[in-house]
Amino acid sequence: MALHVVIMAGGKGERLWPLSTHNTPKQLLSFGLEKSLLRATVDRTAGLTDKEHVYVVTNTAIADKVHEQLPDLPRENILAEPIGRNTAPCIAYAAAMISLKDNNSVMAVFPSDHLVGDPEGFTRALRFALDALKTYPHLLITLGMVPDHPETGYGYIAPGEILFSDEGFKLYKVNTFHEKPGREKALEYMEEGCLWNAGMFLWRVDTILEEFRQHTPGMYDDLMALRASMKQGRDKIAAFYERVESVSIDYAVMEKTRNAATIPAEFGWNDIGSFDAIGKVLPPDGHANVVSGDVVLEESSGNVVFSSGKKIVVMDAKDLVVIEGEDAILVCPRDASQRISALVKKMVK
Amino acid sequence: MALHVVIMAGGKGERLWPLSTHNTPKQLLSFGLEKSLLRATVDRTAGLTDKEHVYVVTNTAIADKVHEQLPDLPRENILAEPIGRNTAPCIAYAAAMISLKDNNSVMAVFPSDHLVGDPEGFTRALRFALDALKTYPHLLITLGMVPDHPETGYGYIAPGEILFSDEGFKLYKVNTFHEKPGREKALEYMEEGCLWNAGMFLWRVDTILEEFRQHTPGMYDDLMALRASMKQGRDKIAAFYERVESVSIDYAVMEKTRNAATIPAEFGWNDIGSFDAIGKVLPPDGHANVVSGDVVLEESSGNVVFSSGKKIVVMDAKDLVVIEGEDAILVCPRDASQRISALVKKMVK
Repeated sequence: MALHVVIMAGGKGERLWPLSTHNTPKQLLSFGLEKSLLRATVDRTAGLTDKEHVYVVTNTAIADKVHEQLPDLPRENILAEPIGRNTAPCIAYAAAMISLKDNNSVMAVFPSDHLVGDPEGFTRALRFALDALKTYPHLLITLGMVPDHPETGYGYIAPGEILFSDEGFKLYKVNTFHEKPGREKALEYMEEGCLWNAGMFLWRVDTILEEFRQHTPGMYDDLMALRASMKQGRDKIAAFYERVESVSIDYAVMEKTRNAATIPAEFGWNDIGSFDAIGKVLPPDGHANVVSGDVVLEESSGNVVFSSGKKIVVMDAKDLVVIEGEDAILVCPRDASQRISALVKKMVK
Repeated sequence: MALHVVIMAGGKGERLWPLSTHNTPKQLLSFGLEKSLLRATVDRTAGLTDKEHVYVVTNTAIADKVHEQLPDLPRENILAEPIGRNTAPCIAYAAAMISLKDNNSVMAVFPSDHLVGDPEGFTRALRFALDALKTYPHLLITLGMVPDHPETGYGYIAPGEILFSDEGFKLYKVNTFHEKPGREKALEYMEEGCLWNAGMFLWRVDTILEEFRQHTPGMYDDLMALRASMKQGRDKIAAFYERVESVSIDYAVMEKTRNAATIPAEFGWNDIGSFDAIGKVLPPDGHANVVSGDVVLEESSGNVVFSSGKKIVVMDAKDLVVIEGEDAILVCPRDASQRISALVKKMVK
């Protein structure tokens, strides 16, 4: 049974503005690492499936850039959404396309803009999930990250009864999904053994289509029309996206189904959703500064500084974010860096 | 008796790097004001003398830019030093040139990169000084700024006996010059009625040449050789600057002569020697931020932010300096901004 991998690369990268922009969002950037986040995400799947079975769903504006970064993927595997409509339509679109080729297959879904510190651990978790699906073909499996701090920026997954266990991994039914909590709730969730919702999924293609039919019947009908048009070689993708509601897979399916399951996993996952997070993930200098490009630091510690061309000099500063993008420069304290995307939205208005 | 004005514009502008650079130093910049500091300095002398009697001493690298900013000055009035050698050689060079034309004249010397908030007050103080020189032709008069805070960044002048008084102004003998003090000393000087040394001078040309002869005989001999060469239309300026010692007029003459006098004056003077000083002088927004260019501030107060092209976004910041120059970006707390020039010197090494 072939594994099809769907990588969601439609993010606009507002949280890491101005390094990341609508034209060159986060997933296309490398942040001083060897590869872009997208390239690394594709490469992480190398031990699991062939390149012909890897699909990237992105937006039309950056589809060419995505193809440039992934010349080893068939061009037709890069699916361009005419409008961003959150994760449910994106996953539905990919599922419809895959079902045309191979309805009796498994589909894994990954965000394109996360970091995985231990790719082998990632592969092991995925192998276990694939194995579990053989016994439980109706399950919608989500990888749950074991928290190491009471993060308020993620949703949490509360595991229920244990279903299956092998090679150190365990498969649980999901009891419930929790929204992003406040500080106290986050501590409580962590103590209760809840997991971070990282947006990584594994399910059979026929299963997810059936779930869409049950929980989003309107979208399902449109999806079947789209699927029929694809079968006939006619492109009705624009019509589908014009009609479809913008909704997350969590809200549309995962929180409604009785078949959600989760596998607790630890493989150095980080969604690097802010410059503060980047500062915690990338290798620091001797004064806990994380820098990239032509940067001079004088009596400064704990700063995150990225130059895109100009020399950046930071003097006497502590825990600041200083980012030079192509068109803009951002300066704020690290602990304010999660609020950038709200500010970017406000400025665009 | 004609007044010749000498404007010293050889400064390298390291204190306001990276806005100010060796190629475009502070005196050529406007900092969001109507005119460059140099242009404003020239214009301030309009009520005192003709443009033909205004000389600008600068360095060869920026002489053309100086001329561009001052097209109304005769080109030959822009004197280019091949090497910067501090203020004594600069003043000596100008004095030698003026003495060739008009030895029986008065010469005023001003820095080119200071701000004067009350130009009429400046003119009145100068008129009083000119008047005083008629009675006391041997004096070397320096305008002393009445301090409004115990600044540690300036030298201080201790006035002695009063010589002359008119129209609210007073002329004092100088008792002594004090080096830049520490915080406590500065308070003491201020309470004793000392004045800030602003580097603005007025004296007869024959007087200053005689003072050079007495206190810097070696330079004086070289200066007379230079003067003789200028008289013959041959340019020996390079030879003079190669031999001459780098020394300030304060150290070479003012601190040694018995003829130093001072006039306390208040005309909104500021040497804007740091971005912190700029923040105190330029008009702030409602949150005490001083900004120039494409700048967006979010929950930020007391910052000094200059954009040279890119949009600068500052969020949740207090009392920071954020400066985008042509080639570099500086970020530091306002109270560290006086240390920039030391850092620039260190980086160039």
